[in-house]
Amino acid sequence: MTARAQIGVTGLAVMGRNLARNFARHGYTVAVHNRSYAKTQSLIDEAGHEGDFVPSESMADFVASLARPRKVVIMVKAGAATDAVIDELLPLLETGDIVVDAGNAHFPDTIRREEALAARGLHFVGTGVSGGEEGALNGPSIMPGGTRESYESLGPILEAISAKVDGTPCCTYVGPNGAGHFVKMVHNGIEYADMQLIAEAYDLLKQGLGASAAEIGEIFSEWNSGDLESFLIEITADVLQHVDAATGQAFVDIVLDQAEQKGTGRWTVQNGLDLGVPITGIAEATFARALSGSVPQREAGAAALPAAAGTWEVADRDAFVEDVRLALYASKVVAYSQGFDQIAAASAEYGWDVDRGAMARIWRGGCIIRARFLNRITEAYERDAALPLLLADEYFTGAVANGLPAWRRVVSRAALNGVPTPAFSSSLAYYDGVRAQRLPAALIQAQRDFFGAHTYRRTDRDGVFHTEWSGDRTEQEA
Amino acid sequence: MTARAQIGVTGLAVMGRNLARNFARHGYTVAVHNRSYAKTQSLIDEAGHEGDFVPSESMADFVASLARPRKVVIMVKAGAATDAVIDELLPLLETGDIVVDAGNAHFPDTIRREEALAARGLHFVGTGVSGGEEGALNGPSIMPGGTRESYESLGPILEAISAKVDGTPCCTYVGPNGAGHFVKMVHNGIEYADMQLIAEAYDLLKQGLGASAAEIGEIFSEWNSGDLESFLIEITADVLQHVDAATGQAFVDIVLDQAEQKGTGRWTVQNGLDLGVPITGIAEATFARALSGSVPQREAGAAALPAAAGTWEVADRDAFVEDVRLALYASKVVAYSQGFDQIAAASAEYGWDVDRGAMARIWRGGCIIRARFLNRITEAYERDAALPLLLADEYFTGAVANGLPAWRRVVSRAALNGVPTPAFSSSLAYYDGVRAQRLPAALIQAQRDFFGAHTYRRTDRDGVFHTEWSGDRTEQEA
Repeated sequence: MTARAQIGVTGLAVMGRNLARNFARHGYTVAVHNRSYAKTQSLIDEAGHEGDFVPSESMADFVASLARPRKVVIMVKAGAATDAVIDELLPLLETGDIVVDAGNAHFPDTIRREEALAARGLHFVGTGVSGGEEGALNGPSIMPGGTRESYESLGPILEAISAKVDGTPCCTYVGPNGAGHFVKMVHNGIEYADMQLIAEAYDLLKQGLGASAAEIGEIFSEWNSGDLESFLIEITADVLQHVDAATGQAFVDIVLDQAEQKGTGRWTVQNGLDLGVPITGIAEATFARALSGSVPQREAGAAALPAAAGTWEVADRDAFVEDVRLALYASKVVAYSQGFDQIAAASAEYGWDVDRGAMARIWRGGCIIRARFLNRITEAYERDAALPLLLADEYFTGAVANGLPAWRRVVSRAALNGVPTPAFSSSLAYYDGVRAQRLPAALIQAQRDFFGAHTYRRTDRDGVFHTEWSGDRTEQEA
Repeated sequence: MTARAQIGVTGLAVMGRNLARNFARHGYTVAVHNRSYAKTQSLIDEAGHEGDFVPSESMADFVASLARPRKVVIMVKAGAATDAVIDELLPLLETGDIVVDAGNAHFPDTIRREEALAARGLHFVGTGVSGGEEGALNGPSIMPGGTRESYESLGPILEAISAKVDGTPCCTYVGPNGAGHFVKMVHNGIEYADMQLIAEAYDLLKQGLGASAAEIGEIFSEWNSGDLESFLIEITADVLQHVDAATGQAFVDIVLDQAEQKGTGRWTVQNGLDLGVPITGIAEATFARALSGSVPQREAGAAALPAAAGTWEVADRDAFVEDVRLALYASKVVAYSQGFDQIAAASAEYGWDVDRGAMARIWRGGCIIRARFLNRITEAYERDAALPLLLADEYFTGAVANGLPAWRRVVSRAALNGVPTPAFSSSLAYYDGVRAQRLPAALIQAQRDFFGAHTYRRTDRDGVFHTEWSGDRTEQEA
């Protein structure tokens, strides 16, 4: 066995298989391995002509077929399966080899694994890969963490197979240990928010205009030629215009209205809570999916709860469509601003030094949230790499200010007419909260001091204070 | 040393000290112990006359002073300190003894500890205690978990020292292992939502009416004689009417508007995400606190972001005050409905069989969210112990329907006039979501099938389906 493969992939379900084909198509010699050989054989039979594959039946042969420093991409189910593969690999690897976990691992697991492998002289690269099956084959967005040293030899290969936008690869070094998987997690959280906002816009157009799915699909199709241009808007137009063959009805109208989830949205929100970053758009989107699947609650609610009085008639159709478009864009800016805030907070907390502008750049192609809009985010961080609030960048402030009256009208109308817009409303509430000179949080802090002696600070001088609420109500410095 | 004490308390900081005094005042012989004897001595010196205390310098003497089965209440900082005390106690205890953790433990820790102690033949009772220092001394709300057997001997003592409402103790058996601490956690989460809703109501009255803190305090004082009657509304009136001695200004106006938190709100939301229960009111409240403390973001936002156009003038003061009151009540019902949903989901998930009506009953006194309103919740679960949605109980449906137009007007007005009302808005969005016959979640599920082959279900027949989006768009049964 000659150790000639430049990279290897173990785990040849559809994602691993497509990544391997992508490597091969880019001229790399690719070692391939799967627990059962049938999948390896099928890859060779069906795609062997696409490039130079080196199949192995055993993990030992697979590792032996790799040139050093070995680069092994693991593409198996996140969790115990990943640990099992790592355990099998470890005795076969040598100092300086690079293990890449391209699955959807939770970033604390990646931190743990990186530490364990670093102690044995190995590089462990937890990498986000976004774009699904199609992206894996034709160019995903790739978010590798780990050491900078590992990126020197691994990075060029990953950049080669990644999506390209204006000639720039949608792959860059993210940061140490768990940074890559973290950024992928937030990408998915933002994706939840983006999808929920689109769903709310659709619902508003449906209820406000009484429009059909196909008509709304046309509106989304038009929107896709402006600021909102993105993969998600594009597929929304497609989905809405698709007709169900079995019934002749609009496809979306025969799909059960219960949205499922696989956990990355939940992880994102749980981490936002840990870091104290208000990612309300992602939270509302995640909970909106949970609500959609809360069948006994929905049945009880639908049977018992009265709706809004009267019917909703939109007087000026075009003006309303434009209002919803502006509200969608403004709410989307908030969701992204919150997500980038979370990346900044995590970067500080975990010592990652993540370049937020670069993250927006590598999300422009390959991944689910790819969009024209991301160029604006990169530019904002080019203007100020330490920007504390994306919303406060001059471009976004202008864009949101332009849509602000429309956004307010839409949220107001939804409340009056009983259309649930948790993400639109929450984004506007965040906007009004983050710009407020004075929040009623002062009352909350005062209540906390009243019932729990939790103390408060003052606006007019430094120090920590407590008022003797149950006594003479004098103030004491704590 | 005679083993004569009926209950013991170790950890004599203010909460432990007050619990010990409460036991003694109710006629129990109380063994007391603290790591440093000074606190024990101070308790005996200052409160020894209140009852029969048995002080010990060593843990061994403390345990030896207790009649069997021993009942040891640990009141130390949650986390490592609790484990350290348990480790010290274990070799001194005998089969059938009862260890009570009255601190604010996270319920998974309680589950772990209960399992470990049960394996040694000991009862471990994780118990929620709400009411702060004052409640600990004069009657808290107590939420004990653990075995039913332990409650037989421990329960009467805890019931004796608990708050009473109409002669009924604010203490009852909650459920196995972590159930007590879980219910206390959700109590705190609901408390976060309740406080945020009150803060939003205050902000609306301030901005809508241009009213002073004292004037708004009077409004809250009036509200406290109606449906909203509760400890939190009462102290809000007090806080708002309090004048800062140093400046002569309204106290709330000199308090820094950054609300802090100690973690139970965060835990509640993280668990809601794990269980898939949409507790959006608690989530928005927790994130609103985080936002209030996000200083760099708020500074950037306040400097850059435009407000709503124009000024807000409320035409009919009394009608607006009544609208805000009705909106507050309706939003509060949603927050509680979500919290009780979470208890039901956890009870099913962890096998606890928690009686939700009983939880509302023991929260009527002693704790921070004590309120007249809780009687209505108990009655709702008496009508239907398996009620899937508290909102759908006839009383709450009626109460919310009565306030629905006002609620919609208030949320609409806040959006138009730039007053951040994340919890009001989110609660209304939840209401409109849970009652919707059809949610736009169908579009989300269709998008997921489009980009990730995540499949969907249909409204018209059973099965799981996938459409070949990148091919001929035929539908396949998955």
